[in-house]
Amino acid sequence: MSAYRDEDPRIHGIRTRIRVVPNFPQPGIMFQDITTLLLDPKAFKDTIDLFVERYKGKNISVVAGIEARGFIFGPPIALAIGAKFIPLRKPRKLPGEVISEKYILEYGSDCLEMHVGAVKPHERALVVDDLIATGGTLRAAMNLLERAGAEVIECACVIELPVLKGREQLNDKPLFVLVEYQ
Amino acid sequence: MSAYRDEDPRIHGIRTRIRVVPNFPQPGIMFQDITTLLLDPKAFKDTIDLFVERYKGKNISVVAGIEARGFIFGPPIALAIGAKFIPLRKPRKLPGEVISEKYILEYGSDCLEMHVGAVKPHERALVVDDLIATGGTLRAAMNLLERAGAEVIECACVIELPVLKGREQLNDKPLFVLVEYQ
Repeated sequence: MSAYRDEDPRIHGIRTRIRVVPNFPQPGIMFQDITTLLLDPKAFKDTIDLFVERYKGKNISVVAGIEARGFIFGPPIALAIGAKFIPLRKPRKLPGEVISEKYILEYGSDCLEMHVGAVKPHERALVVDDLIATGGTLRAAMNLLERAGAEVIECACVIELPVLKGREQLNDKPLFVLVEYQ
Repeated sequence: MSAYRDEDPRIHGIRTRIRVVPNFPQPGIMFQDITTLLLDPKAFKDTIDLFVERYKGKNISVVAGIEARGFIFGPPIALAIGAKFIPLRKPRKLPGEVISEKYILEYGSDCLEMHVGAVKPHERALVVDDLIATGGTLRAAMNLLERAGAEVIECACVIELPVLKGREQLNDKPLFVLVEYQ
């Protein structure tokens, strides 16, 4: 959670650029759409800067991004802090040997895979996605990194839906988010 | 095509970090795996820098990235040149109103979608993906942008497979690549 979240004027600009689309992907779901945030170069840059300011100098050597929207936010953070980027992908997408984790979604179930050898034991890792809902995807991502011997320092998302209590699924690891939707 | 491609010492480092995985996703296919490039922060940064050096100051206001690996390379370029980032996605992934383009893949067929309103008429656009094979995906991406009134300035990929002649599918638009595999 960000101490400056409600104070930093950049947060307001980011929030106003996120579009809420009702009834996607299923009736009754309110979908937080970050593609409209990406259309504003300043708001997108502010988003990345807020994460980089938090993680720079923290000896994080791994940024893991979750397919597919975590691929948009993770790489710019990794480049700025000098870390490697590891894509965590849906099944049958990674060409090399993988380890897998199944997880339950807000609407359905899925599986996440990571290349064997992508992370070394004791590396300090950050997990990045656009949004935390029930926390199942982030938990699967953390499990993959920890099974490979990495230390997950924190999870970082643009958006949190606190009503879904995803934060409770993260094994007491810290979660940093920029905006919440009730 | 890069004039300095064979001269810039960064290109050699990038090439050595790309892994070739045989028989993925189908028997007989040699798959160029950029995930190993992403594990080397310097080689990943060099990759982005080479694109940014080419596109900075060219009045490009749109970087469109193709799901999913174009999401890894497109956003850092967009952020560095001050452009918006538009994700071009597989069907039923974008929550808003979309336009669609079907295309033929090296192995199968697929469809790409773009949000209506993401690009304005006459905007100057760059299309980014990790690899050009037969060119069908990039052609579909260009079609989406042009149907929305944008001017596609160039396509940029890390890798080209010239034997598949994908370059010929791009309607005489320039293609810039960092490394080729025969």
